[in-house]
Amino acid sequence: MTSPAYDTNNIFAKILKGEIPSVRVYEDEHTIALMDVMPQSPGHTLVLPKSPSRNLLDADPAALPHLITTVQKIAVAVQEAFDADGVYIAQFNEPAAGQTVFHLHFHVIPRHEGIALKPHSGKMEDGAILAENAKKIIEALG
Amino acid sequence: MTSPAYDTNNIFAKILKGEIPSVRVYEDEHTIALMDVMPQSPGHTLVLPKSPSRNLLDADPAALPHLITTVQKIAVAVQEAFDADGVYIAQFNEPAAGQTVFHLHFHVIPRHEGIALKPHSGKMEDGAILAENAKKIIEALG
Repeated sequence: MTSPAYDTNNIFAKILKGEIPSVRVYEDEHTIALMDVMPQSPGHTLVLPKSPSRNLLDADPAALPHLITTVQKIAVAVQEAFDADGVYIAQFNEPAAGQTVFHLHFHVIPRHEGIALKPHSGKMEDGAILAENAKKIIEALG
Repeated sequence: MTSPAYDTNNIFAKILKGEIPSVRVYEDEHTIALMDVMPQSPGHTLVLPKSPSRNLLDADPAALPHLITTVQKIAVAVQEAFDADGVYIAQFNEPAAGQTVFHLHFHVIPRHEGIALKPHSGKMEDGAILAENAKKIIEALG
């Protein structure tokens, strides 16, 4: 398999260019974190590099240290913000693995004992709820 | 939630100390990669830092760049070795998120269209099959 080329018009590329809105909780020189609009649990956050790559298979290795550093920060913050019993981290490469937006991203998902996750790319969450959850994460990030 | 302390007798700690065997496909100064003995698909590989941490929540940030670099190498290699349509990457923090061994590790799992994953921590694979799959990954790593 050769990875298809990066599509500069994917949803996350448009978010990074500011062409469509997002609910951001974190941003630095190399990465951003934003609320998944179809969360599998409250607090489900996505971490993206600003540099373009389709997924991990074609990513510039130089982008990865920044990315995983932000993933860790967000994991710790969502655990605290949602008093989670655990945190599930997932990264999907290509549709066969569940990838639906073709800009590299990590899912950071709070888990609670006995509460199942909602499906990936399921129901669109209310904007006010996303904003409220984002506020909790931003507070936990300090 | 405060993370429990690192258990120096967890299975992966024992593997790192050479006290119990594993089927390794990669090793460098900071990381190792080995076959999951209960694979969710053929080629299911685990990537671990050599430094001790329970999971991503308590990991030394300095260990993470090495770790994600190896995760990418293994993801590319398993995709090639198993002619996979996709690669699923997962990292579980605490039992509520599916963690069963308490030394930080990433799962790197080849996916094929239309073929469901087996359960996490399911059936023990035959050692000869693990060795054969490891050989394919080692070849793909060059």
